[in-house]
Formats: sequence, C-alpha cells, structure tokens
Amino acid sequence: MRILVSNDDGIDSPGIQALVKALSEIAEVTVVAPHAEQSAAGHSITMQVPLRISKYYKDGEFFGYAINGTPADCVKIGIRNIMKSLPDIVVSGINHGSNTAINIIYSGTVSAAREAAIMDVPSIAISITNTAAKNFDFAGKVAQKICKLVVKKEEDLPKGTLLNVNIPDVPIEEIKGFLLTKQGKSKWDDLYEERKDPQGRNYYWLKGDLVEVDRELDTDQAAVRNKYVSVTPIHFDLTDYVTYEKMKNWKIEKLLYETNL
Amino acid sequence: MRILVSNDDGIDSPGIQALVKALSEIAEVTVVAPHAEQSAAGHSITMQVPLRISKYYKDGEFFGYAINGTPADCVKIGIRNIMKSLPDIVVSGINHGSNTAINIIYSGTVSAAREAAIMDVPSIAISITNTAAKNFDFAGKVAQKICKLVVKKEEDLPKGTLLNVNIPDVPIEEIKGFLLTKQGKSKWDDLYEERKDPQGRNYYWLKGDLVEVDRELDTDQAAVRNKYVSVTPIHFDLTDYVTYEKMKNWKIEKLLYETNL
Repeated sequence: MRILVSNDDGIDSPGIQALVKALSEIAEVTVVAPHAEQSAAGHSITMQVPLRISKYYKDGEFFGYAINGTPADCVKIGIRNIMKSLPDIVVSGINHGSNTAINIIYSGTVSAAREAAIMDVPSIAISITNTAAKNFDFAGKVAQKICKLVVKKEEDLPKGTLLNVNIPDVPIEEIKGFLLTKQGKSKWDDLYEERKDPQGRNYYWLKGDLVEVDRELDTDQAAVRNKYVSVTPIHFDLTDYVTYEKMKNWKIEKLLYETNL
Repeated sequence: MRILVSNDDGIDSPGIQALVKALSEIAEVTVVAPHAEQSAAGHSITMQVPLRISKYYKDGEFFGYAINGTPADCVKIGIRNIMKSLPDIVVSGINHGSNTAINIIYSGTVSAAREAAIMDVPSIAISITNTAAKNFDFAGKVAQKICKLVVKKEEDLPKGTLLNVNIPDVPIEEIKGFLLTKQGKSKWDDLYEERKDPQGRNYYWLKGDLVEVDRELDTDQAAVRNKYVSVTPIHFDLTDYVTYEKMKNWKIEKLLYETNL
C-alpha cells in the first residue's frame, strides 16, 4: 500500500510525525507537506508565485518533501511531480485541533484530503481535539485502522467522498468508542481585537468562541465532546438540492423577458 | 437596502467597480475587498498576521476599504468592525472568470459570499466567464435583478444557502436566458511546469485544462457554455448523506473492541 501524507500544521509538527510513524507500519509512506504552518488555509491553491520543493530531514534522516504552499498544493504537486502516480490513499493530519462543524470549511487539513478526493484518490483527514494534544499514539492507531477500513470498503466509498475523522485528546481508557456522524452546525462568534502598533496605527486580530449548538451524538461536534471518535463522510458537491427543488417555483428562466435585461 | 460588496480580484479590479456602480442604483453600498488579488484563495482566513484596514480612493473619491487579507476575512471584518451590523445582502464579484463546477471549491469569490451565509446574511457570488471580460453592463443588471429576487424570496432561501451566479461574457443579444442549475462535475487536468531560476534551482507553475464533462443544461458549466446565465443554490453542509446512510452497515461503532485500540 502506498500512502501520501500531508497536513496543514507544517512538516515539522508533532502530529504529522506521529502519523508517519504509525502509517509506516502498514504502508510505504511519502510525505509532502507545507514548509510553514497553513492553518485555516481553506481550499486555497497557489497561483501568484511558483512552488518550490525542498527535502526535509529529521534527526539526520530524510523525512519528506516541504512545499512553500498550501495543503491542497502539496497533494497536487505531491501526486503529479513527486509520486508521479496515484497513491492508494492520501491521509492528512494529524491536525492539532478538531475539524468539526464549521471548522471543516476553513480547514487546510480537510482541504488536503479533499484535493485527493477530487483526483479520485480515497482520502482521510485526521484531527485531534486539542491544539496542544498529547495522545498521538491512539490517534496513530486510529489512522491505521481507518486506512485499512477504507481499502476494505472501497466499493462503498464513492470517488469524491472522503472521511473526516476527529479524535478526542483524552487518555485511551476514557475513549467511549467510534461514531458515524454528520457535520455539525456549531459556528464561531467572531470578533476582531483592535490594537495599535508602535507607530500608532491600528491592526486587528481575529478571535472568537465556538458556540456549541450540537447536542446529538450523530454530529461530529457532539461526538468528540462526549469522548467518541467521530467519522464523517464529506464530499465537494455544494449544491443545496432541497433549495434547488424549491427554486423551481421561482421561474428564473423568465427573468430575461421580465426585466428587459 | 444595505449591501456589502467584496471580491477576490482585489479592490482595484474592473469587475468590482462595475458591480458597485450597478448596486449603488438600488442600495447603500459598502465596499470591503482585498488589497491585492486573492484568486484561488478558497475559504482561507488570516490567522498568522493581523489585518489592516486602509481607505481606497478611485478618481479622487472614497470607494471602499482595502484589507490585507482574503475574501472571507473581508466579509468578517467588514461586517464586524466596519458596518458593525448585518447588511441586507452580501454580493461578491463580479469575478473575472467563471466559478462553475470544481472551481467553486477553489474560489475566493464564492468564499466571500459563503462567509456571509455562515453569518446568516443572504448572499450572492457573481462571476463572468472570461478573465478578460468586457460585458460588465449586463452583469451589473443581473446583479441588481438577483439582489431584488433574493429580498423578495427571502423565506424560500434558507439561512446558510447562497446563490452562485455565472454569466457568459457575450453581447447581451446572444444571452439565451436564465437557468436554475446544479454544480457541475467538470474538473481540471492539472500539471506543474518545471522551470529553472537564474541560480539553476527548480520552481513549478501550476497549469491545466478544464475537462468539460458536463453536457446537461441543468449544470452550471453547460449552462454558461451554452450562453445562459446560471443560478445555483449552494450551501456549506459538506456531509455526503447518501454515503452516510450506506456507512451505517459498516458498524464502525464496533471498531474500538475489534482492534484492541
């Protein structure tokens, strides 16, 4: 089995190193990850500057390829120009901090896995709930298990669908189990803190609190809060089909004539 | 009516200027847009550096606020710190180049509108099919019309759903009409072109061709190719519900016991 590993915290983060250690026990692993932290990169790709590929060494040994770009860039160039053929699975993570509910939209970790799904490669995004997480050993085992499951169930997982896995950062004996979940509806209550630089000019830092509205255990947010490992199938068809059906009554095909446009 | 306008091509682009001109005829318009081009920014937000707000003047007159950030940043800080209350609508565009099919995932234009939808504000992303587009007058009229429609139909458009509008860049007499559409399945066949800098080091530019697989007029991609204005309702619930139902047979809740994790 050939696995491409990427992330959004950067190639030198403890999370990706724990993931590579775990997956190397079950597969041939290639690492292509951002040179610098790319949290909240969303699904951005780099168009205005060219990409560079550099080799990254850890403890004197070759660890992987570092890219001056985003998580989605890493998967694209990793498959096209480094691996030069499709891997069996792409795994992104282990992210320091959960990617549940609205965070899926902003997440670079999820975008790396989604870029693989766009290329028809089965993929998994893996996150742990604490930005200062400690329990990577369990998360690594979960990564192994989910990879095996994805290979086994490949026919049940359509091209374009990836698994978004979130793991509570608690001692293994406190983990209650695994749950199949949907994306929750919890969102950030944002604000920008205004500060002044030494020249007296204003600048703004984003801060905010997640407003947890998800109560049901079939949502990613509630599952991890209740110490379950959450597994959510997500895709990149953004069409709102319910509204699409309702909008058939809008008769928008008549707009051109109605308005003398 | 109070409208917040943003985009991803930057505050000095012809597209946003045409949009502001058109919407100023029907509403009080506030412009908060990126200082520099942010194409393919996806739904990234800026966390590692603070944001700055500067005033942008066009032909000696105040035009709007420029932000050193992404389209999603502009909508967040525009609503929270500049308007300080929710506008009636957020309109993002007019983007130079279509945001159909897979491009919706990478689009900064769509992300600005989606950020508004996350904040429960009705929103519209507007794009024109040519990166060197000329027919902004018609696109401006479409923007006016769609804004009025969104206000009129507000109860039919759930919070969290935005309209993604794509307009063919052809003379108005060639426009065939408006169509309600779904996100198409056309994707890029990417490659990275390898070049050498004057120091002899490799660098890589992303390039690619869109492989147009969409044939049916109820998809955004086929609609604009056939000279229709395409209107697609999209949302930010990424759950793949079909696969979710299938995965109930995977019994993933048993994984913890099966594997001695």
